[in-house]
Amino acid sequence: MKARITRGYIAAAIVWTLALSATVARAQDPLPAWNDGAAKARVVAFVKEVTEPGSKSFVPAPERIAVFDNDGTLWSEQPVYFQALFIRDRVKALAAKHPEWSTKEPFASLLKGDLKAVMAGGEKALLQLAMATHAGMTSDEFSAIVSDWIATAKHPNTGRLLTDMTYQPMKELLAFLRANGFKTFIVSGGGIEFMRPWAERVYGVPPEQVIGSSIKTKYELRDGKPVIVRLPDLNFIDDKAGKPVGIQQHIGRRPIAAFGNSDGDYEMLAWTTGAPGARLAMIVHHDDATREFAYDRKSHIGKLDRGLNDAASKGWTVISMKNDWKTVFGPETR
Amino acid sequence: MKARITRGYIAAAIVWTLALSATVARAQDPLPAWNDGAAKARVVAFVKEVTEPGSKSFVPAPERIAVFDNDGTLWSEQPVYFQALFIRDRVKALAAKHPEWSTKEPFASLLKGDLKAVMAGGEKALLQLAMATHAGMTSDEFSAIVSDWIATAKHPNTGRLLTDMTYQPMKELLAFLRANGFKTFIVSGGGIEFMRPWAERVYGVPPEQVIGSSIKTKYELRDGKPVIVRLPDLNFIDDKAGKPVGIQQHIGRRPIAAFGNSDGDYEMLAWTTGAPGARLAMIVHHDDATREFAYDRKSHIGKLDRGLNDAASKGWTVISMKNDWKTVFGPETR
Repeated sequence: MKARITRGYIAAAIVWTLALSATVARAQDPLPAWNDGAAKARVVAFVKEVTEPGSKSFVPAPERIAVFDNDGTLWSEQPVYFQALFIRDRVKALAAKHPEWSTKEPFASLLKGDLKAVMAGGEKALLQLAMATHAGMTSDEFSAIVSDWIATAKHPNTGRLLTDMTYQPMKELLAFLRANGFKTFIVSGGGIEFMRPWAERVYGVPPEQVIGSSIKTKYELRDGKPVIVRLPDLNFIDDKAGKPVGIQQHIGRRPIAAFGNSDGDYEMLAWTTGAPGARLAMIVHHDDATREFAYDRKSHIGKLDRGLNDAASKGWTVISMKNDWKTVFGPETR
Repeated sequence: MKARITRGYIAAAIVWTLALSATVARAQDPLPAWNDGAAKARVVAFVKEVTEPGSKSFVPAPERIAVFDNDGTLWSEQPVYFQALFIRDRVKALAAKHPEWSTKEPFASLLKGDLKAVMAGGEKALLQLAMATHAGMTSDEFSAIVSDWIATAKHPNTGRLLTDMTYQPMKELLAFLRANGFKTFIVSGGGIEFMRPWAERVYGVPPEQVIGSSIKTKYELRDGKPVIVRLPDLNFIDDKAGKPVGIQQHIGRRPIAAFGNSDGDYEMLAWTTGAPGARLAMIVHHDDATREFAYDRKSHIGKLDRGLNDAASKGWTVISMKNDWKTVFGPETR
């Protein structure tokens, strides 16, 4: 009897211990939305390599800089950049104050929903729309406009909040790097002040770690109160060869890890991996038409061609959204 | 006998306790280089006010942004900005490669040591000298040049290393704020890449928290390696009304504390204190001819006139270097 009880206890203890280990293992996996595979293994090995004391590739914490593109890397960018949805909604919201827009291009076409006609106006038309919606107010006012808009803006296909169209595996990656002493930055072709109002809440990236394209601004007094006014004049395009320039301008040291998804990120990845020491560069490949979108070499948005050609020879890891990600989007928040 | 021994023990214990208390008090004073007075009390009260849970002025840690001017606020700026000494030394070092400089102004006058003639050339001459010494190399090369120079560059009057001409009370203040969850930034009219190579070592401020004036840069490949090349073309002047613009561009949120010393910092202080909530703005007043320099309203460098006029009405605290600082410079490091 006593022996049976003892055996019973031992068996129970073993089962319980195994169960506990599994729980602990799950709890300890910092990247549960990633399938076990080469991409996940590469991330984990890199972080170990640069953080383990005594490692020959050890990097002191202040030098652990990681940069992330936003559109197509942290959230979706199809069927159009989400900032274009903002422009559309703002033009509609402002139309009552601008009766002249009903006959003036590119506003007239946009208000009629004729995006083809808008696109026919080329870069000049897009710039006009951007300036009409991004300039002319103070920095505080613009921040409030973006915050209000992003709180309810939904994706045209999925109906999800745009902030729910962010990639769960990438958010885990941001948190995993930060837990290992990294400072995480966003380096995007999108507008710097378009991202700042929500990047901290959604990605855990504070405003001072957001780098993007910008327009010029001016300090002045209004009714005796200091304001920063947004001017309809381009200041900086944070895309392609502009990304390393923006990184040097804002961060002042070379990242050791970079994450992108399109050829707009090519130079950022090249700059990050173009110096000695342990480096990590990864490209999110949109190959999952079922759960997200599938596009690369021929896409009008997020074109990925050179990056696919050169990744292997440069030691950049291509992340297959389809195979490497267990989950694409997190649970809906509304 | 027993009573005497007891009294002796008690007396010894009291003395020892008092000594210990004094030691503890000293050890706990985060600002030992400051005399007890209104300026120090203001700093301590402000930090308590914004950090104490339950305080009606509590500010969450991510929003605790503090900005510091550099020249005249964190280190000396007389008899000339230290970056001017860098320009002088670089022109001398580069002269052998530029035989034409022996007859070309403003280089010829600078090489002859005739600073009056250089100054007579006005802003154009200074810009020429700045571009000849700050552009034409890669960002990595420039960083190495500055690092080498700052390692030995000495003050013309005191013979101290320039990095030893930094103010001990302000370095304590930086550390005190950081210990209370603040992120500390430098916001200077000086060159951003001139400060970054040593700001982390000397002030504990990492490169990504340094904001300054800049020239344009360009990404390119040299022998297949990515570099960022410094161009002889002004990009941004981080002075006066440029400071709030630089702050918004880099940080993207309004500081709650700002420290300056000249009218070049006026708009930064106004921007910082121009919003509701607890705010701290302080001006270092150079009134100590014995230990440092004495200058204000009429100085050609670090002119402080509007700031002195308006400090009281704006609630900005003027720090008297003479009366508020127990120590000006820390011990020499060489």
